[in-house]
Amino acid sequence: MEHKVAVFRKEHFNAAHRLFCADWSDEKNTTVFGPCANPNYHGHNYELVVQVNGVPDAQTGFVINTKDLSTIVQQEIISRFDHKNLNLDTTEFKNLNPTAENIAIVIYNLIRPRINKELDLKIRLYETERNFVDYPA
Amino acid sequence: MEHKVAVFRKEHFNAAHRLFCADWSDEKNTTVFGPCANPNYHGHNYELVVQVNGVPDAQTGFVINTKDLSTIVQQEIISRFDHKNLNLDTTEFKNLNPTAENIAIVIYNLIRPRINKELDLKIRLYETERNFVDYPA
Amino acid sequence: MEHKVAVFRKEHFNAAHRLFCADWSDEKNTTVFGPCANPNYHGHNYELVVQVNGVPDAQTGFVINTKDLSTIVQQEIISRFDHKNLNLDTTEFKNLNPTAENIAIVIYNLIRPRINKELDLKIRLYETERNFVDYPA
Amino acid sequence: MEHKVAVFRKEHFNAAHRLFCADWSDEKNTTVFGPCANPNYHGHNYELVVQVNGVPDAQTGFVINTKDLSTIVQQEIISRFDHKNLNLDTTEFKNLNPTAENIAIVIYNLIRPRINKELDLKIRLYETERNFVDYPA
Amino acid sequence: MEHKVAVFRKEHFNAAHRLFCADWSDEKNTTVFGPCANPNYHGHNYELVVQVNGVPDAQTGFVINTKDLSTIVQQEIISRFDHKNLNLDTTEFKNLNPTAENIAIVIYNLIRPRINKELDLKIRLYETERNFVDYPA
Amino acid sequence: MEHKVAVFRKEHFNAAHRLFCADWSDEKNTTVFGPCANPNYHGHNYELVVQVNGVPDAQTGFVINTKDLSTIVQQEIISRFDHKNLNLDTTEFKNLNPTAENIAIVIYNLIRPRINKELDLKIRLYETERNFVDYPA
Repeated sequence: MEHKVAVFRKEHFNAAHRLFCADWSDEKNTTVFGPCANPNYHGHNYELVVQVNGVPDAQTGFVINTKDLSTIVQQEIISRFDHKNLNLDTTEFKNLNPTAENIAIVIYNLIRPRINKELDLKIRLYETERNFVDYPA
Repeated sequence: MEHKVAVFRKEHFNAAHRLFCADWSDEKNTTVFGPCANPNYHGHNYELVVQVNGVPDAQTGFVINTKDLSTIVQQEIISRFDHKNLNLDTTEFKNLNPTAENIAIVIYNLIRPRINKELDLKIRLYETERNFVDYPA
Repeated sequence: MEHKVAVFRKEHFNAAHRLFCADWSDEKNTTVFGPCANPNYHGHNYELVVQVNGVPDAQTGFVINTKDLSTIVQQEIISRFDHKNLNLDTTEFKNLNPTAENIAIVIYNLIRPRINKELDLKIRLYETERNFVDYPA
Repeated sequence: MEHKVAVFRKEHFNAAHRLFCADWSDEKNTTVFGPCANPNYHGHNYELVVQVNGVPDAQTGFVINTKDLSTIVQQEIISRFDHKNLNLDTTEFKNLNPTAENIAIVIYNLIRPRINKELDLKIRLYETERNFVDYPA
Repeated sequence: MEHKVAVFRKEHFNAAHRLFCADWSDEKNTTVFGPCANPNYHGHNYELVVQVNGVPDAQTGFVINTKDLSTIVQQEIISRFDHKNLNLDTTEFKNLNPTAENIAIVIYNLIRPRINKELDLKIRLYETERNFVDYPA
Repeated sequence: MEHKVAVFRKEHFNAAHRLFCADWSDEKNTTVFGPCANPNYHGHNYELVVQVNGVPDAQTGFVINTKDLSTIVQQEIISRFDHKNLNLDTTEFKNLNPTAENIAIVIYNLIRPRINKELDLKIRLYETERNFVDYPA
């Protein structure tokens, strides 16, 4: 066992989205995605937990300063997705279904370059209190 | 003191909305409503708590059967607003700004006729964990 | 406006119960109480919030010392109901249906004599996160 | 690293139970299990989180449709245990002590055949907010 | 019934404090305040809920813009008390015991002049999840 | 896969602390630690989750009796840190910066000798709802 600690920072954003496959009929979209396929969108309060694993610095006692981590999340994620329509207002989900799984992968890929390579990164995203995902698993 | 008990039932729905005044310029709407005025909508997980006050029945011990209360909320509110765009998909908010205040008043008015007159009704609506309203106050 | 402050103390207990009217047939009990009428009982993690209203003492700044309030709740409620079968193990619910409404009234009546007369008392009882009651309303 | 995502779905059920070893005296049962050994049972609001890990489908963006996952949990777990006495009303705990550990293992074994083999399954069960288990660890 | 709606905004701050009466001996302070009398202080994550009651504006649908309310709380409360020692770093609690009751009254008096007179104000302060107060009651 | 189950027990304590490096100037401490460097301390409600992994006992169905686990946490952690100033009142943080990372490592090292060697131990510590750590990662 290495002496790694996992540090978690929780943020949130509110967004609208719609789940559907452009190749499918309305009927098939409704069968698969149910009310999530509503053409006029619905929305969520997304709760985002960013996890960074590493060895604490001997002097500061920090794996990563959570203020810095919060700033990175603010710059890369909140400013991009908060109070937006994920399907219409973003480039990331123009051609990618904004499921919780895909949003978590997109968030991981946006934050990963901002975190030191020796640190591990993991994303948890709550779409609702009862539906949530981790990436990587 | 009367022997009234307040009974609470919590439900939830997910919806998209946009806050704006049709009479105002985009600039004024953004000044007043901030990112909530985004023309492509954003959304929330609304948590709804319905409160009914009355004297418990001597035989059942219920003010109101929470199963019945849940059914009323399902029929009047969840089926109407869940996974909907409040501005586009509903008649209630066609010409009424869907603020938490107005949504709570609309919900009260939809449920009130379904509850016995001798029972008091109150609505709490959480737009987010940190922004919520009660009606009547 | 008087300068009253409300002080709240949250405690919890776990108990089994069954809802039914002894005068009714099994069918009628199941119709009214649904699965809550199961003859072999089911159970809950009850969350209890005791509210005491009064004017803070000028010297201590306390309406009531929450340690003392917690002790009263422990002695009168937790020791009586925690890890008990409300229908079988208590005198209070031998002939009283243990609905959330009735449990809250019983708790109020057990705590009321232990609180100074000039202080107001109110009980909130969560049967589940989604079903809860206040007494008095 | 494979591109696996973990999907979580939270459900709940309310049940009564009693912890004891049939081979032991009442004294020994009370020593080991404390008030959980109460012969007349007590109960809990069990919160169940089912986790399924896999690679999201390229077209839907889903590891598993949470509606389908919810249906499986409803059919296998909620309909079996909700509003039941685990010791008396189920076959699974007739001869197995219904500790949180054992309930989680039983739930895993009931759900596992309903989930595709290439997907990993994990169960989290909250007996109370302060006592919970994961299986497998 | 007037058509008043209550609007709630939740904020938080972290602070150290100590409960004691300067006139009392250490023994008496420990008897009354228990470990809260520790001379070197302890601390809390205070959760603050500010409630404003009024009639929603016909055009905006707002009783009060929660952004404005949040700004007022930030300016008057968070900047004053967050990451502070209430006994040492503030003028308000130099000679006033920083109980939850007194902190709530102080917060009310700081915010009241910033809210329009026709609006009612109420403060809820959580010292911990299990100990909290309302002012006015 | 072994048949290990993870058992979690949640406890809490309230403490004051200050983050700073004794070798640094006040300016550098404020730059790095922000308001957490306040010389007069601030504080938190720490939520502590202790996780123990192992194979349940065939007879009891327990990996570890959570009453015993709670007692260990009470004796080693709560009695040591609750209502204390971590910098001034403890030996552990006399020369160690009391970041969440370091507190979690200290807690792990205090509890580890009290847990059977064949059982795995993991610590989660919430400094606030939005900042928390795991050790080991």
